[in-house]
Amino acid sequence: MFERILVAVDGSEGSRKALRLASNLQQTCGSELLILTVFRHHSLLEASMSMVRPDDPESLDDSMRSYAKEVAEEAKVIAAEVGASNVRAFVKAGQPARTIVRFGEEHKADLIIVGSRGQGDVQGFLLGSVSHKVTSLASIPVMVV
Amino acid sequence: MFERILVAVDGSEGSRKALRLASNLQQTCGSELLILTVFRHHSLLEASMSMVRPDDPESLDDSMRSYAKEVAEEAKVIAAEVGASNVRAFVKAGQPARTIVRFGEEHKADLIIVGSRGQGDVQGFLLGSVSHKVTSLASIPVMVV
Repeated sequence: MFERILVAVDGSEGSRKALRLASNLQQTCGSELLILTVFRHHSLLEASMSMVRPDDPESLDDSMRSYAKEVAEEAKVIAAEVGASNVRAFVKAGQPARTIVRFGEEHKADLIIVGSRGQGDVQGFLLGSVSHKVTSLASIPVMVV
Repeated sequence: MFERILVAVDGSEGSRKALRLASNLQQTCGSELLILTVFRHHSLLEASMSMVRPDDPESLDDSMRSYAKEVAEEAKVIAAEVGASNVRAFVKAGQPARTIVRFGEEHKADLIIVGSRGQGDVQGFLLGSVSHKVTSLASIPVMVV
């Protein structure tokens, strides 16, 4: 019933749980599964680090992109282990929630799956702020796992 | 893959959309489908109506329960029209989000489906406050439609 499922992963345990559920649902529905890892540009990261200014913003960007690629690759391995097929993985830079929703629109996904709490969501404090933003912004169904 | 899906309906167009998706997913997964309509007790309603105090709180409770039953019955008809089977409908009084989550736990649901915006969620203002609360409170996956 879902033709194209988008699952967002960030390397957190919550996002791995979301990925496993997405991989099972992919098989049940015979969908295509798109895996997306979003990393923040140094400018966005800087804004969240108050007075800290990295010496070399470009190399910081490279490190974050490289880490995001590792997360996406690990996600492909996990999806295959769970038995998913028809899987593609992507890496994008930007604000997590907006980037996930925009990517879903561009790729005509009909379901977005996210972990309830990802990296950077301090337990009990920001409580899944990315997943909340995604459900607010998306015009398609969003599953919070 | 989902054994027992709980869908919350309140008579809004958003919740009907959630119900139709839940009914399709029920068939894809061969799940049991539980439909729940929650109405507020007069004491909760009073609190949200500032100075207005109903003359006869008990008859107000009866009216709300009766309306909730109609919504639940209509939901069963819609689910059947979409082709769902193995469907049961329930009516409960209480705070919507907490009551939905507690009902899901008690009935061992493994997925909750809610509309992104229900009755009482003023468009663009409270923006799906019930669905946000459900995703925050639930320990099982929640799909916001």
